[in-house]
Amino acid sequence: MLTKLGILAGRGALPGQIVRACQSVGREIFVIAFNGETDPSTVAAGVHHEWVDLPTVGRTIRLLKEADVVELVMIGPVGRPEFSKLKPDWHGAKLLPRVIKAARKGDDAIMKVVIEDLEQHGFTILGAEDILSNLGAPLGVIGVHEPDSGDRTDITRGMDVVAQLGIMDIGQAAVVRDGYVLAVEAAEGTDAMLRRCREFRGERPGGVLVKRPKPGQERRVDLPTIGVSTVEGASDAGLKGIAVAAGGSLIVDREAVAAAADAVGIFVCGVPEEDEAENRLETGS
Amino acid sequence: MLTKLGILAGRGALPGQIVRACQSVGREIFVIAFNGETDPSTVAAGVHHEWVDLPTVGRTIRLLKEADVVELVMIGPVGRPEFSKLKPDWHGAKLLPRVIKAARKGDDAIMKVVIEDLEQHGFTILGAEDILSNLGAPLGVIGVHEPDSGDRTDITRGMDVVAQLGIMDIGQAAVVRDGYVLAVEAAEGTDAMLRRCREFRGERPGGVLVKRPKPGQERRVDLPTIGVSTVEGASDAGLKGIAVAAGGSLIVDREAVAAAADAVGIFVCGVPEEDEAENRLETGS
Repeated sequence: MLTKLGILAGRGALPGQIVRACQSVGREIFVIAFNGETDPSTVAAGVHHEWVDLPTVGRTIRLLKEADVVELVMIGPVGRPEFSKLKPDWHGAKLLPRVIKAARKGDDAIMKVVIEDLEQHGFTILGAEDILSNLGAPLGVIGVHEPDSGDRTDITRGMDVVAQLGIMDIGQAAVVRDGYVLAVEAAEGTDAMLRRCREFRGERPGGVLVKRPKPGQERRVDLPTIGVSTVEGASDAGLKGIAVAAGGSLIVDREAVAAAADAVGIFVCGVPEEDEAENRLETGS
Repeated sequence: MLTKLGILAGRGALPGQIVRACQSVGREIFVIAFNGETDPSTVAAGVHHEWVDLPTVGRTIRLLKEADVVELVMIGPVGRPEFSKLKPDWHGAKLLPRVIKAARKGDDAIMKVVIEDLEQHGFTILGAEDILSNLGAPLGVIGVHEPDSGDRTDITRGMDVVAQLGIMDIGQAAVVRDGYVLAVEAAEGTDAMLRRCREFRGERPGGVLVKRPKPGQERRVDLPTIGVSTVEGASDAGLKGIAVAAGGSLIVDREAVAAAADAVGIFVCGVPEEDEAENRLETGS
């Protein structure tokens, strides 16, 4: 029998999807909703939950234990707070110096500190795709459109660029057209990055959005994610498609993403993370 | 005696400054102004010039030779064209395949192709700071404000990040606050990057804009540049200051930049490009 699942619910639609998936298979859940972060609809209509402030870590842990939760999933992004304005509880205050130190290295470093602390308190952290098995990006094309050889060259360059960014724990996404890096993601997020690519639109569609995890990334949280809004953003920017690391990225509502991609005429595909060398062999260079 | 100087004038105020600097010392000049790129004021009031289209390279070379120019300076950025829409002349058409191939590697690769071609035609390419000796960013603080130790840590991280970007010929600038990379420059340029940093403004000023050349960059063209508008953009984004690679960056109108920085209360400083290791020693880590 499936045990009760604790859900630390960040922003966006993904936490609600996990909630509904658990409900549909009758799995018990307890949701920690973060004030100012979690979409209230995530915990609407009888979902067992508590609202907490991000830095009251002690209270969160106590609530999870009182709810007899052992397995946890952390899903949906959380904004990086202004540390000087936080009002942590005792446990949060103990954790804060390590979080601040990690913050200088990047978001992934912060998540590692948080996960380590939760594990020390006896919790098991699962990846979201362990719960929603159709959430992980598969290998190959989703929908009917396919990248051509020029697009594949841009995908390879994009995967290289994002890997390079990832080494410094900067971002997980870039936009490449004809080998030229139009945009690189840092704190602004993918939607904002796509918006600024509109000014580089050519007369014909061109360019690819590439998302992949950072090398060495904590894989159970914060995987690169795309959804219908990503498809719309890529289309508005005049791109030809989206490529994500298969098995290392999440696709929110795969069927809707495929339908949206087909409708606007762009491709969405999962590529191997270590695709680069193979692609080069295929293109004969 | 100074020979006549050919000026290939890109966008912005820098070409005009070079023109006025030459006029003030009585040096003869001949300006190639690019349709749709060069600010018309650059060649106003009796400046010897011709307007050309970017891809009519043969005509440009002929005009330069007819004007008896040997020494050339290329100054001010030029937008990356849509190659499929170009109407090159015979010489430009011969050059285009190499330019398109280089374009897949980055802007610096394009400039290397163009410079090589000009040198093969007997021209000598000078750096802008050879003409305007006060254009190169000096070591140390410009103005009255200085970076503190936290800012210096952000500067070091920013120099590392931009060096990493530069290896892939992506961009020359990044914004770092408390070790966190807020923004990374690609095709959008520094002003647009600073505008999007406004959304991350904290209550107190924080963060640094860092600009440096790409490792291995062709130093005679396309050095990272700041001016009064950069100071204003950094201030609007709530940053504490600007750091540029000393000797590897240009400061347009240093006195005005210092005055603007003093007025808005931010620092502007030149740091050694290979500063990273030294900074780490200073902070004892």
